[in-house]
Amino acid sequence: MPETNVLTVGSLGESGLLARILPRLKGAPALLGPGDDAALISAPDGKFVITVDTLVQNQDFRLRWPSGFESSGFDVGWKSAAQNLSDVNAMGAFATSAVISLTLPHDTPASWVEELAEGFSAAVRDLGASHCAIAGGDLGRGSELSITAAVTGSLATEKPVLRSGARPGDVLAVNGVLGVAAAGLALLDSPVSYLEWTEAERVLVFGQRCPAPPLAAGPEAARAGATAMMDLSDGLLKDGRRMAIASGVDIDFDTQEMGQDLERLAPAAERLQRNPMDWVLGGGEDHGLLATFPSAEDLPQGFRVIGMVKKSASGTNGPLVWLDGKQTQSAQGFDHFEG
Amino acid sequence: MPETNVLTVGSLGESGLLARILPRLKGAPALLGPGDDAALISAPDGKFVITVDTLVQNQDFRLRWPSGFESSGFDVGWKSAAQNLSDVNAMGAFATSAVISLTLPHDTPASWVEELAEGFSAAVRDLGASHCAIAGGDLGRGSELSITAAVTGSLATEKPVLRSGARPGDVLAVNGVLGVAAAGLALLDSPVSYLEWTEAERVLVFGQRCPAPPLAAGPEAARAGATAMMDLSDGLLKDGRRMAIASGVDIDFDTQEMGQDLERLAPAAERLQRNPMDWVLGGGEDHGLLATFPSAEDLPQGFRVIGMVKKSASGTNGPLVWLDGKQTQSAQGFDHFEG
Repeated sequence: MPETNVLTVGSLGESGLLARILPRLKGAPALLGPGDDAALISAPDGKFVITVDTLVQNQDFRLRWPSGFESSGFDVGWKSAAQNLSDVNAMGAFATSAVISLTLPHDTPASWVEELAEGFSAAVRDLGASHCAIAGGDLGRGSELSITAAVTGSLATEKPVLRSGARPGDVLAVNGVLGVAAAGLALLDSPVSYLEWTEAERVLVFGQRCPAPPLAAGPEAARAGATAMMDLSDGLLKDGRRMAIASGVDIDFDTQEMGQDLERLAPAAERLQRNPMDWVLGGGEDHGLLATFPSAEDLPQGFRVIGMVKKSASGTNGPLVWLDGKQTQSAQGFDHFEG
Repeated sequence: MPETNVLTVGSLGESGLLARILPRLKGAPALLGPGDDAALISAPDGKFVITVDTLVQNQDFRLRWPSGFESSGFDVGWKSAAQNLSDVNAMGAFATSAVISLTLPHDTPASWVEELAEGFSAAVRDLGASHCAIAGGDLGRGSELSITAAVTGSLATEKPVLRSGARPGDVLAVNGVLGVAAAGLALLDSPVSYLEWTEAERVLVFGQRCPAPPLAAGPEAARAGATAMMDLSDGLLKDGRRMAIASGVDIDFDTQEMGQDLERLAPAAERLQRNPMDWVLGGGEDHGLLATFPSAEDLPQGFRVIGMVKKSASGTNGPLVWLDGKQTQSAQGFDHFEG
């Protein structure tokens, strides 16, 4: 990334860089925005949700991938916003503020950081987080690029929708794509040049670069009486297991309901000689919603049934995840410290 | 830091590490704490302040210093809490929640991360942030250690105390020590072995490792009618200049009032052949408060007068900082991307 004669964060200094970033951070107005020791945000119902997530260079994104594709600052900023907005969505809340902390190597081009600010703002705008202020942040130096955002939100209903509310007999539903971000990641990581990607493959990669959590759907599910809900960030099986454990129930996924997902992934799976079901069941970063409802009639628009909640069958051995009525011990999915 | 046969974050994995950290994160109860997609925090007056700050290895702390001293995870956790709690304090607010994001190399000893959690909790407890929940967080891998915290707070008065409220004729006051953290940093960075430090020098180093922002003082200053306030994080001259610019006034520091600060720093300054006034005027990370009040009679306990606010003398050239009635152009202080 470093080039000669490029304006870098080191040559600009902290205030020079801030002067370039702040105009590019556009969101809803805060009661008090960037520029003081802290921002001031409205919480009309006397409470708020808060979440935090970090993206680190070479762990959560690469500047240049084996396929030759180069990630822009825009993509990284978008993804940081999207993953945090998704966590707020999964509580049944709409975002009210974001604060951002950037760690930047000395030789990072100023333009890359400007793009990052633009990507973050674009996600807030384009994903429909129209009440979300970009309220402040922090700048520091490090040897690798890293972006942390904390996002707050206001609940759409009196109480949040937790992971722990699933009850036997509830239907299990998802909103959003499954396996797209994982397929996109596999394409980026493959030695097949990005110049050879088909249009359908570029769409998969776009889903990895700029995921689109369904932000209206979280509050809608809360209003529709969702009993449990969570963000699909680490893969269907792994996140499903978390919901099963939190709720003390078994979860049975119906793979017959995943036909449209498999179809979307088939050409890329064929090219890369992968099983698309692995992406559907184990792929993270799609940031859809996994939710349970008392009955299929309760599902708001955009949700589709993908399984059932069952009484825990294992007694003291704890909650289980099933696939088509068969017990699975697979904990397929993403772990930050494995591998 | 890496040693053989040491339990590392890589060998524990994400859930194993979480199981060790969570019991060590102790704060006030949240409406909903760690374990779901987001935490839920009370904001009784319908609004809240929020701030975010990051500490990065080899930028904001070192595991091993030129003096041979080794920073523990405890110190880094304490410092992360302290600097964020201080920002909330400077708005005239008390902290209500903290969320923490950790980036850890694969070979980080689990014990180091446990200490970090204990240090963060100790700062929350010992600095008196008795309403602050440690409400959630994020774990990820990176090539260097990094900790980001976002902290929220509730205002003690109807409105926050901003940097922009200083008016000509106000007295300028500080609460807390000046130059201690800078002197401690100089000792850590010096080739003089830490084994040779005197008791007085160890106190200075402790001020750098575990700064003690006066957390009751921010809300008290707000109630006492402070017109402007900010956290002293980057040095008296640099932060004073920021207040002057935000308020559109000149600020005149009276160095006669810094006698007790200089006295505290004198032995270390002599040993390291440094001018202690540089630490008092330029040293960051003490996390005291700089505040202005309509008159000296308004000062709450713990604040001392350190200068005056004056009408801007430069007309269109903008606000200025003065030392003992003489204009200074020095912007001494910390910049994350300089040097």
